[in-house]
Amino acid sequence: MDPNDSVTSVSVEPARPALRGFVFPRTATGASSLLPPPPWHYSGDLLTIEYRTDPSRVAELLPPPLTLVPDDMDPGAVAMIFADWQSCGGDLAELDDPIRAQYKEAFVVVRCALDGEVFSRCAYIWVDKDFAMVRGHFQGYPKKLGSIWMTRPVTIGRAGPRVEAGGRFAGTVGYHDRRIVDAFVTLTGPSDGNGFVNGHAMLHSRLMPSIEADGRDSLDELVTMRGVDVELGPAWRGDAEIELHASPVEEIARLEVREVLGGYWRSVGTTFAGGTTVVRETSRT
Amino acid sequence: MDPNDSVTSVSVEPARPALRGFVFPRTATGASSLLPPPPWHYSGDLLTIEYRTDPSRVAELLPPPLTLVPDDMDPGAVAMIFADWQSCGGDLAELDDPIRAQYKEAFVVVRCALDGEVFSRCAYIWVDKDFAMVRGHFQGYPKKLGSIWMTRPVTIGRAGPRVEAGGRFAGTVGYHDRRIVDAFVTLTGPSDGNGFVNGHAMLHSRLMPSIEADGRDSLDELVTMRGVDVELGPAWRGDAEIELHASPVEEIARLEVREVLGGYWRSVGTTFAGGTTVVRETSRT
Amino acid sequence: MDPNDSVTSVSVEPARPALRGFVFPRTATGASSLLPPPPWHYSGDLLTIEYRTDPSRVAELLPPPLTLVPDDMDPGAVAMIFADWQSCGGDLAELDDPIRAQYKEAFVVVRCALDGEVFSRCAYIWVDKDFAMVRGHFQGYPKKLGSIWMTRPVTIGRAGPRVEAGGRFAGTVGYHDRRIVDAFVTLTGPSDGNGFVNGHAMLHSRLMPSIEADGRDSLDELVTMRGVDVELGPAWRGDAEIELHASPVEEIARLEVREVLGGYWRSVGTTFAGGTTVVRETSRT
Amino acid sequence: MDPNDSVTSVSVEPARPALRGFVFPRTATGASSLLPPPPWHYSGDLLTIEYRTDPSRVAELLPPPLTLVPDDMDPGAVAMIFADWQSCGGDLAELDDPIRAQYKEAFVVVRCALDGEVFSRCAYIWVDKDFAMVRGHFQGYPKKLGSIWMTRPVTIGRAGPRVEAGGRFAGTVGYHDRRIVDAFVTLTGPSDGNGFVNGHAMLHSRLMPSIEADGRDSLDELVTMRGVDVELGPAWRGDAEIELHASPVEEIARLEVREVLGGYWRSVGTTFAGGTTVVRETSRT
Repeated sequence: MDPNDSVTSVSVEPARPALRGFVFPRTATGASSLLPPPPWHYSGDLLTIEYRTDPSRVAELLPPPLTLVPDDMDPGAVAMIFADWQSCGGDLAELDDPIRAQYKEAFVVVRCALDGEVFSRCAYIWVDKDFAMVRGHFQGYPKKLGSIWMTRPVTIGRAGPRVEAGGRFAGTVGYHDRRIVDAFVTLTGPSDGNGFVNGHAMLHSRLMPSIEADGRDSLDELVTMRGVDVELGPAWRGDAEIELHASPVEEIARLEVREVLGGYWRSVGTTFAGGTTVVRETSRT
Repeated sequence: MDPNDSVTSVSVEPARPALRGFVFPRTATGASSLLPPPPWHYSGDLLTIEYRTDPSRVAELLPPPLTLVPDDMDPGAVAMIFADWQSCGGDLAELDDPIRAQYKEAFVVVRCALDGEVFSRCAYIWVDKDFAMVRGHFQGYPKKLGSIWMTRPVTIGRAGPRVEAGGRFAGTVGYHDRRIVDAFVTLTGPSDGNGFVNGHAMLHSRLMPSIEADGRDSLDELVTMRGVDVELGPAWRGDAEIELHASPVEEIARLEVREVLGGYWRSVGTTFAGGTTVVRETSRT
Repeated sequence: MDPNDSVTSVSVEPARPALRGFVFPRTATGASSLLPPPPWHYSGDLLTIEYRTDPSRVAELLPPPLTLVPDDMDPGAVAMIFADWQSCGGDLAELDDPIRAQYKEAFVVVRCALDGEVFSRCAYIWVDKDFAMVRGHFQGYPKKLGSIWMTRPVTIGRAGPRVEAGGRFAGTVGYHDRRIVDAFVTLTGPSDGNGFVNGHAMLHSRLMPSIEADGRDSLDELVTMRGVDVELGPAWRGDAEIELHASPVEEIARLEVREVLGGYWRSVGTTFAGGTTVVRETSRT
Repeated sequence: MDPNDSVTSVSVEPARPALRGFVFPRTATGASSLLPPPPWHYSGDLLTIEYRTDPSRVAELLPPPLTLVPDDMDPGAVAMIFADWQSCGGDLAELDDPIRAQYKEAFVVVRCALDGEVFSRCAYIWVDKDFAMVRGHFQGYPKKLGSIWMTRPVTIGRAGPRVEAGGRFAGTVGYHDRRIVDAFVTLTGPSDGNGFVNGHAMLHSRLMPSIEADGRDSLDELVTMRGVDVELGPAWRGDAEIELHASPVEEIARLEVREVLGGYWRSVGTTFAGGTTVVRETSRT
């Protein structure tokens, strides 16, 4: 399109410093980066529904060499988790501009085994802000941009449940104008924990297809991570219901509900300070 | 456009029951109404910044016969209030579908006098859901659809302030992709109340221009209302800052900040169960 | 709450001019009004699907004294219309800030008779901007804030249909994260018009319940209006499909599809310059 | 947290097929992938404003070994481009569900040189849908989720410009409730092209920081790509204005406007069918 596509000389420039920024866009100052560098702090409320599906539906979501957990460990267990988060970088700047701090997410967790060790793994996840989406892609969460809502507990007035026996909480997920999850938990009493499916270190795949779109990946890493400086509020257990709805571009309904195991509500604080690469594929070389 | 615009006979129909629904659309069942009938319950957190502007800028927003409050009552006082609400009708149905229960709003309150009585009056307001917008129009709030964010207090983790001395909260308003308010409150200690500007019964105008668009109004009512069954959480006072930004379609910056009076944080529960018509204009007859 | 609720003197103020603005918020300048005064100009594309439902389902949406049209006029006919609009006031200011000019809407039109005359009437409608919502309430459209999408015709490239035989267009409506309408039209050829259901003057109810919420309305007007300076582009006819989905707060699915009558695509330009009050109820006096 | 983190046996499973899907989430069927595989078709309208900034502000955005283009090639030239797209995969499925087909974007393009060849390079970009964001990350565009609006041409009615001399078009960008760009073009006549800055093959960086967040990147590729099967509509030239506004998390205003070069409007159709890896960094080994 342009006759000057080829040039024979370029300007002489002084040496330039490296570009700055944890992720794109990288610039001279780093101020534009969609994300600040870790640590990233999170404070939020989690609503969890655990249920049992056909283990083969979990197995089909695990790339080799990951396998199902053993039969005596409930390999078909699934956790559907709703989270209402506030988060920020190490300088807390986002708390002064809360549109950059608050987001909601909903995610589906299963377990898998690798080399005799059990991990949690996120199968599906939706968030409602760009920074949360890209942060998730960096961590290997397969995040899409959805619409997530969860009933908030209140301490005053009539327009909400209390965190106490009888308190009823709902969580919903919409993607592209279709409701795909409706879940409900009615608290029955205190609990030792808030479920077992999301209780291991995460084992995620970080993927980037080659720009040639030739079926190979330029990035295909198995990574693992755990929160640090975790603070856990009192956990509550309850009776749960969950409904999964169809969508042409979602498959959560394939993880059909065979038996509801329980529901939980808990406030959580955690910090992400980096993870560990487990396997880096070299299929591209 | 259609030759059948005039007809000489109509079908014989059995008597039909009246349409149902608190507001539009009214139907046979009432299920489609954008709002259920009152009572409407609200539970939420309020961040308030009070400041003093030029009283003439308040006066110019008051339609006759409303007047400024007397000079010894601080007639130029303004409250900028951010609220993060959960709300529902009497059957609490919205709490099971929280996209219909949660909304955020930011509003500007001044005071006025009518017949020797002092009222609070909302000058500008933005909300982020349709049900809150129409509920406000019914109540005489001049609601627009904006983007409102406020820092949420946390009880665990590092990603948020505590409701305690030193806790810092921000509130922001965007309208049509322009930031028009940035406000900050750093708590200093407990307080007896959360401000004086929004402390009276509300006095609002409910307006609907005539469909002829001839400069007359089909509805022009002065109405007053107060919450009932109000529950107030502990109030906190703090140091406040507020910045008002320009927009071609907003005038909040005309209420220029001359002196910041204070900032407050408080949880509130309230119920709306109807108001009272004060003056109904009859200009159309 | 405030001991100064009653006062015995008020400031002496100079006479103040009336507040300005077509709707709220009214101010000294009028610049904040959510809407400019008419005329309002509209240019857009309309995708229409007409079908036949049980006439009793239409009748139940008509408040007395409105009635169904006669049996020989197809009283159960329904038009589902999707529109992708650009609109502005008389000074065209919105075209320089297009977030204030563009919106999409989807609406359901039926016909009714009053005093031997046939009218079109909007039963349900969703829009995606606040100015369009309030403009509609002023005109008696029962607008909610939804998510509306319609395939756009293209003149170049492969990512869209042409306005020609074989061109396929979709329209969808979401409300509160639930898809409630999916419709499709595949063009078959030129057409004389784009349907008959929406071809009459509109007959709408403008409603505002009393602030007392006592079952009475402060405003209950029947109004009629027609666009002026209407410009119509070439109309196209096609084969249509339409699917209506359930929602706990919508009743469009009650207007069940018995027979699809046809589909249409057309560009339209129109201006709203005011309507006419037909009946003003006086139930409040 | 879980005593069963280590296990000594795993279930015996049959061999599982590889997971399917162009990007995450990968599943047994591939239906959930946020993106279908290329080809991706695009049809849309482009509004372009070209201006000259301080070349050092362009240079500071170029990572080595990229350099400025030579002095006689206008190294400080910048193109601000607004695009209103409809796009789809090879099976056109998105055109039947247009929420998945339509998006708007705004992007800033500069030029750079590598090995004596000139390329276009996207410095900043905002889109309004998740699929467009991830597609961009795959292509090396540093996409954020913003709010982009551009005046649409009309062929009928008064609510929009015509594509003809005198037609006036606006483009705006908002990020996190702050307006950061306002641009305007008034068409003056036909043009041979729609600018020179975006006229070369793109040269982009695809980046993924290591999960260890140790300052290294797991993916750091230079890739190049060009559209195929490009169809170009008639180009129009016009007088342009552009205003860049400050934001704490954006740096477009650093690319300050020294001289406006021109404005353009054009419809474009193009297909992405894969790109080429130019340099793959091996800093991680």
